[in-house]
Formats: sequence, C-alpha cells, structure tokens
Amino acid sequence: MTATTDHLFLRACRRQPVERTPVWMMRQAGRYLPSYREVRSRSSFLEMCRTPALACEVTLQPIDQLGFDAAILFSDILITLPAMGLEVAFPEAGPKIQAPVRTAAGIDALVVPDPEQEVGYVMEAVRQIRRALQNRVPLIGFAGAPFTMATYAVEGGGSKDYPHTKALLFGDPASAHRLLDKLARTCAVYLEAQVAAGAQAVQIFDSWAGILSPRDFREYALRHTKTVISMLRASPTFRDGGVPIIYFVNGCAPYLADYADSGADVLGVDWRIDIGTVRRGVGDKVALQGNLDPGVLYASPEEIRARVFEVLRQAGPVGHIFNLGHGVTPATNPEHVRAMVAAVHEYRHDGK
Amino acid sequence: MTATTDHLFLRACRRQPVERTPVWMMRQAGRYLPSYREVRSRSSFLEMCRTPALACEVTLQPIDQLGFDAAILFSDILITLPAMGLEVAFPEAGPKIQAPVRTAAGIDALVVPDPEQEVGYVMEAVRQIRRALQNRVPLIGFAGAPFTMATYAVEGGGSKDYPHTKALLFGDPASAHRLLDKLARTCAVYLEAQVAAGAQAVQIFDSWAGILSPRDFREYALRHTKTVISMLRASPTFRDGGVPIIYFVNGCAPYLADYADSGADVLGVDWRIDIGTVRRGVGDKVALQGNLDPGVLYASPEEIRARVFEVLRQAGPVGHIFNLGHGVTPATNPEHVRAMVAAVHEYRHDGK
Repeated sequence: MTATTDHLFLRACRRQPVERTPVWMMRQAGRYLPSYREVRSRSSFLEMCRTPALACEVTLQPIDQLGFDAAILFSDILITLPAMGLEVAFPEAGPKIQAPVRTAAGIDALVVPDPEQEVGYVMEAVRQIRRALQNRVPLIGFAGAPFTMATYAVEGGGSKDYPHTKALLFGDPASAHRLLDKLARTCAVYLEAQVAAGAQAVQIFDSWAGILSPRDFREYALRHTKTVISMLRASPTFRDGGVPIIYFVNGCAPYLADYADSGADVLGVDWRIDIGTVRRGVGDKVALQGNLDPGVLYASPEEIRARVFEVLRQAGPVGHIFNLGHGVTPATNPEHVRAMVAAVHEYRHDGK
Repeated sequence: MTATTDHLFLRACRRQPVERTPVWMMRQAGRYLPSYREVRSRSSFLEMCRTPALACEVTLQPIDQLGFDAAILFSDILITLPAMGLEVAFPEAGPKIQAPVRTAAGIDALVVPDPEQEVGYVMEAVRQIRRALQNRVPLIGFAGAPFTMATYAVEGGGSKDYPHTKALLFGDPASAHRLLDKLARTCAVYLEAQVAAGAQAVQIFDSWAGILSPRDFREYALRHTKTVISMLRASPTFRDGGVPIIYFVNGCAPYLADYADSGADVLGVDWRIDIGTVRRGVGDKVALQGNLDPGVLYASPEEIRARVFEVLRQAGPVGHIFNLGHGVTPATNPEHVRAMVAAVHEYRHDGK
C-alpha cells in the first residue's frame, strides 16, 4: 500500500512533491505500436476488449517498451453501452450503434447495468493487469463521461455537427437530462467496480463536450460529470483508497472557470491552449495533465524535446502529469514517443 | 455609393452607429432551403459554383425568403485549388483532392492563379448577384484562409487528426511556409478580384485553424492570414472602397489576444465561447460577428428567441453582426431560421 501511494503519478495527482514529472500518454496501448498491431491482427477489437489476457497483454506493452509512469486499462468507452441496451459494432471506420436512442421511450428503456455481472471481463482484466504490473507503475481505469456517451448513444457514432444530439438537448431537454442521468449512474458504478478490482486512479473522458457553448457545457456536460464525481466521492472504495479522479474535456479553453469547479483532482488539458494559461485560469486547487499536440510527435526528436521542455516549464513542478493533449495517432513513430518520454524524464525544474 | 456605405451590415462592420443589429448566416444559401435543394437536384455542386446564373439564383434565395441583411456569394473555398494545380471532386461525403501535395517538389509546382483568367465565373457571378440585388443588401465575397486551404491541399479532404498536415508543419516547416505563402497570395488576389467585380465585404474562412496550439496558430495560421490582409490593405480597390475584412477562426477561444491582432475589421466568433468574453478579450478595436450555436435552431421558436436575445445582450449595440457560430446544418427547419431573423430584427438594445 505504501509503495502504491508513493508512485510518482499518484503523488503528482495529489499535488504532492515529486522528484520529476511523471508521464503517460492517451492511447498508449494502441495502433502506433507494432506489438499491438500484431495482437490486433489475430483478434477483433471487441475480442481484445472482452478477453482479459489480451487486454492485459496490450496494456503492458507501452510500460515494458517505452517506460511510461502509469498504465491505462485497454478497453473502450462504449463497452458498457450493450449492457444498457444499445448494441455497438467496431468496424475500422469507427464505432456504430445499431439503433441509436432518440426518443423519450427509448431513453426510458435503457438500464443502468451491474458492471461485474454485465462487463465482468473488464474487472478481470484490471485484476490481471495489476498482478502483471507487480506494482511497477499504477493502473488507471476509465469511462466515458455522460455527455460524450450520450453523443454516441444518440448520434449512433461519430459526427460532424451532432444534429441528433443537439435536436434532443434543445428540443427535449427533459429527456436529454434523463438520458444523461442514466449514463452518469452507469459511469459511476462502472468506475467504482474498476477501483474495487484494483484500478488506482480513474479518468473520465469527455471527448466531445467541446461542441457545446459555455452555458450548455455547464448544463449538459459538467452537471452530469459532477454527479459521477459526487457518487464516487461518496463511495468508501474511493474514499479509503484515496483514488484520484481525472476529468478530461477535449477543447476545454472556453470553460476554464467551470472546469476547475468539476470536483475532479486532475484536469486533462488538450493541446489547443497553453497549459500555463490553464494554470492561471484554474488556480492551484487541482492538478493538470497534458498537453503536447500529438502532431508534434511527427517532428524531429530535437524539436520534440524542445516542445516537451516548453510544456514542462509552463506547467511547473507541482501537480502536473505530462501527457499528450489527445490520443497518440496510429501513424506515430514509436521512436519519437521514446524521445518524448526521455525528454520528460531528463527535465529538471530546478533550472535543469 | 452613399446607399451602399449606408447598409446596416457595413456600418456595423465599421463600428458605426446602427438602429438595430444586422444579421446573416453562414451557409444561408444551402441545403436547409427547399428552393436550394430544387436547384441542386438539377445540377451538381460544382456546376452550381461554375454557372453564374445558378450561383446568383441560390445566393438570392435566403435574401428573398428570409430577409437577411447581407448576401454571401454562393461558392466553395476550394474552387481555386484546380487553378493552382490540385484537382478537386465534390462527392456527397465531402470534397476530395485527387493528388494531395505533401512534398517540397509538389509545393514548388503549385501556381498562384490569375482569378479572372482561371475562375472568371466567380467574378461573373458576383457581377450578376450585384445586379440582381439592386442594392437591397450588400454582397459578401469570401475565400479560404491559407492554413485551412493547406489542410485540404495536404490532407486531401477533411480529417480527424490531420496527420499529413502536421507531419508537414512539424517535419518540414520551411516547405509548409512556402505552401502557406502561395495560398496567401492566391487568397489575396482572388479576394481582390471579387471586390473589383463588386463584392462589398470579404470573409476569410479559417475553419480548421482551431486544430493548432496557440504558438502554431500564430506561426502557421495567423501569420499567413496577416499576409493576405496586408496585401488587401495595400490594394487601391480595397482601400478606396472601404471594404471590411472579416476573419473567421472556428474555435477561436484559445487565441483571443492574437486573434484581435489579425488586422481584420471584424472577427467571426464560433459558438463555443460567450461573445461577451470575446469582447472583453479583444477590446473595442474590432467588430464581432456571431455566435449562436447552429444546433439551437433545433429548439422551439421561443427558445431560439431567448437565445438570440442573450447573444445580442452580450455583444452590445456597437460593432456586432449577428450570425451563427458556424454554418447552418442541412437538417434545420427554415421556419426556425425565420424565427431567428425575426428575433434579431425585434431586439432593441435600449432596454428593448
């Protein structure tokens, strides 16, 4: 237990002193790694998510190969949707919900699933990963935030303009809130189950909250994420484990004041805003995670190093977890990721 | 000439007093209008762009039917690419550049076209539209900003992560700047030709500049838009006509201080930030245009009215042109657009 709470990553989440800034990377267990593509060539994406041994294998690959300071469960934010009543397919072009939910009746028919019963393979993967990691680095669990889950449930997949989602939000706000509330309760019990199985931190991904105006962000995204966080804070599993909660809004620049007020311990910061600006905007009560443009990994190792140093300098020594500002892209050269990790590990805040 | 400069829209662009706030809408000549779909059912999108009578017909439809205070040329930002050396197709799924440019040699082979020679049908459309409008409302011309044009030229179409664009920017910045400079010069001569043909204001669309970090926005987007604006300001056609320049960055929230410094007369504001926040951020030296979430047009006419009033209240009486924060979506009910226009025309800033 002491070893666990002493992990660099967990200390940074709690804004405790660290000898250097920890680093992990969104989608670090992913297609940019040849060893991941090798596993993927033998199994479908869904099989990988549903087979704990495979999920465990790919979760550990970036830890073993690239030396990140935290592991993140290999899974998908949509993995809980079938158990709620929405079948999902994962073709190459992106996830597809076969019968998206767009009516009050459809929303009322959705259920809040029992995670161990319905997606127990995720918790089994968490247990296997914890054993395999042997406490080298902590394991982060995750789930989709209510609003982002709603965009998939309603739109049926990714979208450019989110017409069905916005038609629901603005045309029938009461039904929208009922849907978001079910997604919030699902998110909370699911994250609680992951922590009970051994996850040492959790990240709530709000990948699409950035399509909202500030008032709608407060009403349709933040409000329901706050419900999730309140439910987690009320859970002994969370409270007693001191499990940090990370909230990541992709495109957070317009919402800084509200974002700081989410109740999360750590705020994920995308690359479109300077992390120094976010620090000044949200104050010192939360830790920050981010925020190198994933596209910078296409640059030379020298340029990567300079850009990594710039992020570290802006973020400062306390309460910062280095990460990309969004997921690593499949076309990224793993050697360039290695250069990024090396630069974070090299940097020292005391004038280097 | 006096009648022209007295248009509400042009006065608002110049921050002169207006009796009420003018309104137009991005993509107002578009698929949400049955009369547009009727024309489109007989001609391809490209035929419509290349046939002045058809471009004129659909440009006037929203003026005649919905009472907007400005017309905007029906065309496409990519219309100049073939003349530069990049063939474009416009299938339903979105534009496709057949052979995207990704090498220094490819960039060097591109030419800055003579607009009247190569895309003279656009200028002919401008002339026909001006005649047909009979000075009822002013006509806005437009072009794609250098950075946004570069994303299409390099990526070959729309993208999620823009891997090729970022590989060029970060892997070969010198070539990226050569490409952006050619696109800037093309943009400037093209807008100058539109103004010479009769356009009374111009908008530079930077739809994808919002994918950049603040430093890269300055270096790869703003810097080259400033070149365009400097070239236009140096042109007697612009100077003597007092033609306002509108710069629209979709996702402008992270860049406010730099955005204000673009040299444009009017800044377009997307819906993800409160327009009051933008006003406080950029000060009083520029006019603002925006910024209702296009998705709000799915709400009831009562809710639309309330949201329109909120934007007008935040933006204030001076130097504001009401618009959506992005293009109207095809699924929008024209009656809801009518409710929006009516609400703008109804509102009075002196306590209503």
